[in-house]
Amino acid sequence: MSKIKNITFTIKKYDYFKPFHITGSLSNFATNIEVCIETESGAKGHGEASPSFRVNGEKVETLIHLEPIIKDALIGLNVKNYRKIFDVMDKFFAFPSIKAAIQYATLDALSEEIGMPVYQILGGAKDEIETDKTVGIDTIENMVKDAKEIFDSGFTTIKIKVGEDLKKDIEVLDEIYKNTRGAKYIVDANMGYTPKQAIEFVKTLYSKNIEIHLFEQPVASTDFEGLKIVRFNSPFPVGADESAKTKYDVLRLIKMEAVDFINIKLMKSGISDALAIVEMVKSANLQLMIGCMGESSVGINQSVNFALGTGAFVFHDLDSALMLKEDNFRGKYLSNPPIYKAL
Amino acid sequence: MSKIKNITFTIKKYDYFKPFHITGSLSNFATNIEVCIETESGAKGHGEASPSFRVNGEKVETLIHLEPIIKDALIGLNVKNYRKIFDVMDKFFAFPSIKAAIQYATLDALSEEIGMPVYQILGGAKDEIETDKTVGIDTIENMVKDAKEIFDSGFTTIKIKVGEDLKKDIEVLDEIYKNTRGAKYIVDANMGYTPKQAIEFVKTLYSKNIEIHLFEQPVASTDFEGLKIVRFNSPFPVGADESAKTKYDVLRLIKMEAVDFINIKLMKSGISDALAIVEMVKSANLQLMIGCMGESSVGINQSVNFALGTGAFVFHDLDSALMLKEDNFRGKYLSNPPIYKAL
Repeated sequence: MSKIKNITFTIKKYDYFKPFHITGSLSNFATNIEVCIETESGAKGHGEASPSFRVNGEKVETLIHLEPIIKDALIGLNVKNYRKIFDVMDKFFAFPSIKAAIQYATLDALSEEIGMPVYQILGGAKDEIETDKTVGIDTIENMVKDAKEIFDSGFTTIKIKVGEDLKKDIEVLDEIYKNTRGAKYIVDANMGYTPKQAIEFVKTLYSKNIEIHLFEQPVASTDFEGLKIVRFNSPFPVGADESAKTKYDVLRLIKMEAVDFINIKLMKSGISDALAIVEMVKSANLQLMIGCMGESSVGINQSVNFALGTGAFVFHDLDSALMLKEDNFRGKYLSNPPIYKAL
Repeated sequence: MSKIKNITFTIKKYDYFKPFHITGSLSNFATNIEVCIETESGAKGHGEASPSFRVNGEKVETLIHLEPIIKDALIGLNVKNYRKIFDVMDKFFAFPSIKAAIQYATLDALSEEIGMPVYQILGGAKDEIETDKTVGIDTIENMVKDAKEIFDSGFTTIKIKVGEDLKKDIEVLDEIYKNTRGAKYIVDANMGYTPKQAIEFVKTLYSKNIEIHLFEQPVASTDFEGLKIVRFNSPFPVGADESAKTKYDVLRLIKMEAVDFINIKLMKSGISDALAIVEMVKSANLQLMIGCMGESSVGINQSVNFALGTGAFVFHDLDSALMLKEDNFRGKYLSNPPIYKAL
């Protein structure tokens, strides 16, 4: 029987190989919660929550205490009726990383029950995807070195963190561009600029003949009007990340014509809102990337299967598991960075 | 192996028990195309196209000649990677009933492959749904008689066709209301009114204390502005049917704030756009009904499984198979009208 029999939460801590610095945040480690859903037949589904206080207001110290509450809410439900479980978890909207982990673990348990991988439950649109890798904020010298290493090791898309110092950021882009010709660039300001600074940034790059393929979240998450001003003044596509958490956020962004791109992260939206966002963004003729928080291979597995299944993404920024120290790789996909393949 | 090995098209003709009259159209029979997708393992998936010239511009005489073209496009594709097949069929947007039949037959074949019903592939949100039944345009006397019969045989929601004669339509509603107290009413004008006539219609009903639960497609399909005028002046929810074919139509209706309800029909949208419409409409906090063209039990099976799986619909108008003469019931659901149950 495919009814849920038990659910367990386990805290896991992973150190970064190198402290990860973005606008307004420096991380030395990621503290995640692994969830396991077991059905009456013994099938086990695995999920991971990687909470972000900065983006979602979540604290792992509180999340872990949801275990008995979510057990009460879900035990006895059938993973084959997964939308019933999704609907229950939608009420836990204040804990989006837990919602994501439980919703994914439900699909993972269903996958074990029926002997078909999650990416095929979601549609099996692609057989492989390519991830980028990220250069955190550092000295110009170190950022160029990191970018070169990433490019030389086979990544064709480099994500570059900016947003704390406009003048230095332009220099960084200039230097990285000279040293990694042929790469594609996603530049992420993580809300660090004002709208006018953001416009100055992209117009200066354009005047220097530096092309960026996506400019992520230039301004504050709540400044949808600011995003629109940047979008209408930028020669490069502008994307929302911190502004785009729920499906309701994304419909508002679409109505406001505020962005060219949406960055879906399962940790912000869960599977249910992520599926809605995919459909809405495609209906609006906009584009999609998929990103991550501090997920290990267990959590990145979720996003890889989601991306393979829906086939909806132009860019995949699924590199956190490459930046964390982890004893064993536990993804149900073939990881050969920058390529991730369906098993 | 779950790769597609063969696809066949078959024309089937079904007579209506009673000629079916709606605004601008009288049908004595439905001519549909059954499609069968067979995989290498021998699994067979069934679908049905019930084309509508009035709504979609389709003619069965041309659709049947798509068989070799669609075979060429799909043979060798794996039904487990169903989104790849959906994407191919999205290009056949000019033949939406065929797109629907093939996309559903793909899921039906997948269902046979993995031993899980289609409604669970789509999420298994509900175990049963309740359909309405429709009173076509006729004399006042006959319409009241039909409504009473429908109500007395257990249907709690009655759909009433209007749109050819405003004054008579108000009389019809008045008489049906008196004779079926406690029923819910969906009133469908099938584009028959001008915006001002539609507003007069609903305001007159309101002044007579007659409540209708949904007022479908009062004005021309292309008159989105007219729909909005009616919505903003109607005490009852206003819905789009003929105006809401693709996901692009629906996003435009949402942006324009033109309606309260969307009527999804697989024959207009296929499975792929229908899934997108479900997600968009819920994200916009609007409501959904699901309807049909002239499907037999093979085609109604598609909509029943879609409705059970997504659980998205307030009203189910899935009565065409109850109005057609058919030798054998072939739905993979338990039909006990007004209740349809998952098997």
